[in-house]
Amino acid sequence: MGFLLPSAKMNSSQLALQYKSALLEDVIPFWERHSLDHEYGGYFTCLNRDGTVFDQDKFIWLQARQVWTFAMLYNRLEPRTDWLEIAQHGADFLRQNGSDAQGKWYFSLCQDGTPLVQPYNIFSDCFAAMAFAQYGLAAGDDAALDLAKQTYENILLREANPKGKFEKQVPKTRPLKGFSLPMILCNLTLELEPLLGSEIVETQIDRAIHEVMEIFLDPETLLILEHIAPNGERANSFEGRLLNPGHAIEAMWFIMEIGKRRKDQALIQKAVDVILATLDYGWDNKYGGIFYFMDRLGNPPQQLEWDQKLWWVHLETLVALAMGYALTKRTDCWDWYQKVHTYTWERFPDLEYGEWFGYLNRRGEVLLPLKGGKWKGCFHVPRALYQCWIIFEEFDGSAKIY
Amino acid sequence: MGFLLPSAKMNSSQLALQYKSALLEDVIPFWERHSLDHEYGGYFTCLNRDGTVFDQDKFIWLQARQVWTFAMLYNRLEPRTDWLEIAQHGADFLRQNGSDAQGKWYFSLCQDGTPLVQPYNIFSDCFAAMAFAQYGLAAGDDAALDLAKQTYENILLREANPKGKFEKQVPKTRPLKGFSLPMILCNLTLELEPLLGSEIVETQIDRAIHEVMEIFLDPETLLILEHIAPNGERANSFEGRLLNPGHAIEAMWFIMEIGKRRKDQALIQKAVDVILATLDYGWDNKYGGIFYFMDRLGNPPQQLEWDQKLWWVHLETLVALAMGYALTKRTDCWDWYQKVHTYTWERFPDLEYGEWFGYLNRRGEVLLPLKGGKWKGCFHVPRALYQCWIIFEEFDGSAKIY
Repeated sequence: MGFLLPSAKMNSSQLALQYKSALLEDVIPFWERHSLDHEYGGYFTCLNRDGTVFDQDKFIWLQARQVWTFAMLYNRLEPRTDWLEIAQHGADFLRQNGSDAQGKWYFSLCQDGTPLVQPYNIFSDCFAAMAFAQYGLAAGDDAALDLAKQTYENILLREANPKGKFEKQVPKTRPLKGFSLPMILCNLTLELEPLLGSEIVETQIDRAIHEVMEIFLDPETLLILEHIAPNGERANSFEGRLLNPGHAIEAMWFIMEIGKRRKDQALIQKAVDVILATLDYGWDNKYGGIFYFMDRLGNPPQQLEWDQKLWWVHLETLVALAMGYALTKRTDCWDWYQKVHTYTWERFPDLEYGEWFGYLNRRGEVLLPLKGGKWKGCFHVPRALYQCWIIFEEFDGSAKIY
Repeated sequence: MGFLLPSAKMNSSQLALQYKSALLEDVIPFWERHSLDHEYGGYFTCLNRDGTVFDQDKFIWLQARQVWTFAMLYNRLEPRTDWLEIAQHGADFLRQNGSDAQGKWYFSLCQDGTPLVQPYNIFSDCFAAMAFAQYGLAAGDDAALDLAKQTYENILLREANPKGKFEKQVPKTRPLKGFSLPMILCNLTLELEPLLGSEIVETQIDRAIHEVMEIFLDPETLLILEHIAPNGERANSFEGRLLNPGHAIEAMWFIMEIGKRRKDQALIQKAVDVILATLDYGWDNKYGGIFYFMDRLGNPPQQLEWDQKLWWVHLETLVALAMGYALTKRTDCWDWYQKVHTYTWERFPDLEYGEWFGYLNRRGEVLLPLKGGKWKGCFHVPRALYQCWIIFEEFDGSAKIY
């Protein structure tokens, strides 16, 4: 584990190697070994520290994300047959069981595929669309691509009222729209680009940039609000005051990818500004790490888990900072990269059983020893390790990072 | 604060005095000073450490519970006009704004009473029924009593499907019923006794005892499960494995009140057995205090706040242990009382600004400095202080506790 911490002696190729070996020698093998349900298809995601299964339910977010991960590795890294088979294992299960008669994706299924929780959560659809787009490409499966496209179109149709009958807010009293969906659409639209055609893609990207960088971004603080009124006003309520620093930072690497694609250096610079402002606000100066939830006015957040340190928050931040530095060479960005790298690599990887812990308490101690659960699966860890690896590898030979 | 900790020299009348002065000199004055909304009626419950208001929304659970608290003090302790006026302040606001056309109680309202969150949560109705029953009695207001009774009847009608259209479970796949409603009905039925007539009361009490002590109670471990299948089977899912020790212990003092009323000493003894078994399972041997959520098989719970120490859990436990000891004189019960008393009184009361902290982390440090929020209001602290006071006062003169 000599590569765990950056030091003045490490260069970008050593960092690339650190991420690559974590991905290919630790994380992917962990999921290959422990997550396949050979009886009913699909994946187990509720895994103890040692990989043993403690719950058999199938959560659509996580089923779809694991399909995406293995198909993505097949498409972008190396066309290994076993990766395609693992993706297919989940894709077949999802296709057979995952959606209702209207094509809406359930939230969860029993182990055998029986629907368990209704399609109240549109992010199930988002991750299903991502999954089938990658898988269709990997497998050369046109029906999978059609399913991805159709699911994407359904998402746009449901966008104005994503929760449908499950929406608990009284209409019109205090209408708020959430940041999550525009944020995911940034990423999803790029994922589905080959299926959508450039006109839809460009229109959706314009909209996404506008929503993320102009509507949800507070121009004074450079913090991204999780909920705003449709007219752009800020609400002074728990939802209206909520900040989710990891969310904001993750969105910024989606935005930087758009900036790269459009060669829009100003957009990239602004994204880096937002990342750094979010870290200034969201970093725990007492114990280190990035808080999970905060209140933009400094009031107590309603989320009791607000001070916990989550794996995905820190991994998405490493991706954002590595990408931000690669695209801008800003030293403030690199200083933050080093700080977050040290915090993350010292605490999240499980040196004994492999893979990464998901949930640390404020002090950075393990809160739940699980490797996967209802929300953590085979997605953020491998995606971020892959992204950082590639970012540092592209650096190599062209510029020294340190 | 010389009465804060029990010691070999304290007797029951000193303990009674400790609870009495905390109630009447600290907690009730805090809510009297800070919570009244003189502009729109009702109460503010989102109070900072010093009592300043940080959010104006009106949550029906907490509006109703504060009406109940002040009406209860008026009815049971002393008919002070100012207490009745405070109860009326909330009762008028609730009556005017709190329910929809079908008599279902909203979850929350804006400061001015505009409905904000739909009636998805039947516990709003439970607390409204409690509130209007106490308030109607205090004010001699028959319309309030009718409203309480009608709300109670609505609860029974909705009992089989309390969430209505907001229910996210696919019907029949894995039907589970929750412990919360039968548990609250134990207490609510006794609260509403004068309105319901003895036949309904006795029938409902029989049912409640059966549900709580035979259906949800696991006879082997003496732990109470939060969810079970309608046929009584245990589900091996996150919900099916969930334990909420504070809930179980709170239910046991409801059961002991029923036991007292029915002079059923066996029921009381069994309730004490359950309390002690729950404490054995739910006590944090490393840092002290009672965990918020646990898994009956020792798996990671899905609630990230599982290891936090909550005010109501500890206060309800003090009530249950004091009552259990008063009714049985079991020394194991008293040993636990002392342990929980010391933990609770050392950590929850705010010696600087008054009232009690609500949310401590696993180590017993303040997690959120608020005095009230979306879930903590003027209810558990004063109710438990009142109950313990009376329990210890009734001891005084008859028997020494130490």
